[in-house]
Amino acid sequence: MQFTFLGTSAGVPTRQRNVSGFALSIDDHRDWYLVDCGEGTQHRLLQSRHSLARLRAIFISHVHGDHCYGLPGVIASANMSGRTQPLTICAPDGIEQFVTAVRQYTDLHTLRYPLHFVRSDLENAVYEDELVRVSAHALSHRVPSFAYRFEEKPPHTLNQDSLRELGVPRGPQWGELQHGNPVTLTDGRQVTPEQVCEPAWRARVIVVGGDNDQPDLLLSALKNTDLLVHESTFTEDILQQVGPQYMHSTAAMLAKTAERAGVPHLALTHFSQRYREKSSPGKRHIDELRAEAAEYYRGNILVARDLDRYEINRKGELSKLDSE
Amino acid sequence: MQFTFLGTSAGVPTRQRNVSGFALSIDDHRDWYLVDCGEGTQHRLLQSRHSLARLRAIFISHVHGDHCYGLPGVIASANMSGRTQPLTICAPDGIEQFVTAVRQYTDLHTLRYPLHFVRSDLENAVYEDELVRVSAHALSHRVPSFAYRFEEKPPHTLNQDSLRELGVPRGPQWGELQHGNPVTLTDGRQVTPEQVCEPAWRARVIVVGGDNDQPDLLLSALKNTDLLVHESTFTEDILQQVGPQYMHSTAAMLAKTAERAGVPHLALTHFSQRYREKSSPGKRHIDELRAEAAEYYRGNILVARDLDRYEINRKGELSKLDSE
Repeated sequence: MQFTFLGTSAGVPTRQRNVSGFALSIDDHRDWYLVDCGEGTQHRLLQSRHSLARLRAIFISHVHGDHCYGLPGVIASANMSGRTQPLTICAPDGIEQFVTAVRQYTDLHTLRYPLHFVRSDLENAVYEDELVRVSAHALSHRVPSFAYRFEEKPPHTLNQDSLRELGVPRGPQWGELQHGNPVTLTDGRQVTPEQVCEPAWRARVIVVGGDNDQPDLLLSALKNTDLLVHESTFTEDILQQVGPQYMHSTAAMLAKTAERAGVPHLALTHFSQRYREKSSPGKRHIDELRAEAAEYYRGNILVARDLDRYEINRKGELSKLDSE
Repeated sequence: MQFTFLGTSAGVPTRQRNVSGFALSIDDHRDWYLVDCGEGTQHRLLQSRHSLARLRAIFISHVHGDHCYGLPGVIASANMSGRTQPLTICAPDGIEQFVTAVRQYTDLHTLRYPLHFVRSDLENAVYEDELVRVSAHALSHRVPSFAYRFEEKPPHTLNQDSLRELGVPRGPQWGELQHGNPVTLTDGRQVTPEQVCEPAWRARVIVVGGDNDQPDLLLSALKNTDLLVHESTFTEDILQQVGPQYMHSTAAMLAKTAERAGVPHLALTHFSQRYREKSSPGKRHIDELRAEAAEYYRGNILVARDLDRYEINRKGELSKLDSE
């Protein structure tokens, strides 16, 4: 699985960091998925390898502008670029109304492609295609907010030991089973694909959180997860200064959850604009967030930067790729 | 008057050019005015000298997304930056509803500053403060579209010849007259400010058009105008290829109007993405637009580029300043 940070700033853009956006693809598949779509996401995409034509689905964590004000532009530009494939938007209540109202008042009545909305705040909300299964997990914020758990669907291969044990003769029935169809043997016994197929590799899992002040809400979603991408807006001392009313996480809060869940890789993102790459008067250094997380978490910490690109390989190892 | 192009691309952003935005200020005044606000305008502002705190008013030409999708982000970021001064938005019908709906669905209910909307599609729509008078002028496009004519209000100075002729003695009455108050002389005669005051310099005028396929609609607004900023989406040959249905101007159409109106400076902007700084397969060179305009217009042609900054001095001379 490959992913690119399109925006890593909380609330407002800075000169270096845009507001939230995260692109995910399965290895070198050109189709891809977008999580959150702050203003300027389509501009970041122009700097990346991802095209609006190959975007399969958009997942919006919550209705705050820094996570969704880029949606109308993405929808309009996909239309102008000639897209005809349907586009799915998974989002909590409010996003469909937002998009519908914007289209109504800004003369964007007709699209060349169908838009499908899926409510992520309803029970059992899920997106699924042949590559991934995505589930939504409720968080704690000033408005309903969700994390999305992307579980890969690796191709299935036949287990030859099982086929031999069950006495399925090599031939067309192997192909039927691999394509997901049960077969009947000459002695009348039925063999199902589940009995003889197994994933070609362990399914990788990435959980991408929205704004949230209770990371522990994700503990069950984090089972068998390779990577948690989550807001880490403040360090603890700054949270003390600004108070809890904005309902964000600190690096420490997030790190404790990641340690508890045993997730091997943790990406900090969605930083208050007071954290900068370089020290300057009145600003804090971004490394303070990493240092605070490292006090509570023994896994691999990644501090997100716009257009940085990473891969989790089929063994679950994380590596940095060339930036976009 | 100083101005900066914030976005110069039609419809969609490119890597070099954002969608429409134009910043105007009166000489070195820190307060400023924004014409059109495509997505990413707040990002361009981070690269400029202009702050959301000192933005006096926004003028939207029409409801298409590439001219207004940056409004919600500007409104939200101005709020987060602590703005308390009222902000005026002059725009045709639809923009207030667009902003209101976005605020409703994205939890932007409360602002720390008042938003005032002025309908530019109504008769006699005008914005005025102590620095400028702005009028709206209807254009021809797929939706109602407007140009905004910014007329400077220079300070008034006393004409000493007139004061002497009318026999106003040097003293406190001169101050009264300069502050706009009539005075009564010792012989009982009244003298009004209009009789003895004159503008300290000729009022400069800039007309900034929205999307429009009939530039001649601006002929009367262009009287005494120093600069016309107007879309020049295509060259004539490309318009022939794509057809007239998008209702845009070519460089030739615009140049003919500017020549007819006798406007001394003409800025071409809002370019189709097929025009590029460098020649490449399937693309056209941006200089083709300038060359086409120069066939029909003898004045000074400026081809807009993002973050390029210019000044029209009090003599009406145009010069390029350091880019942002």
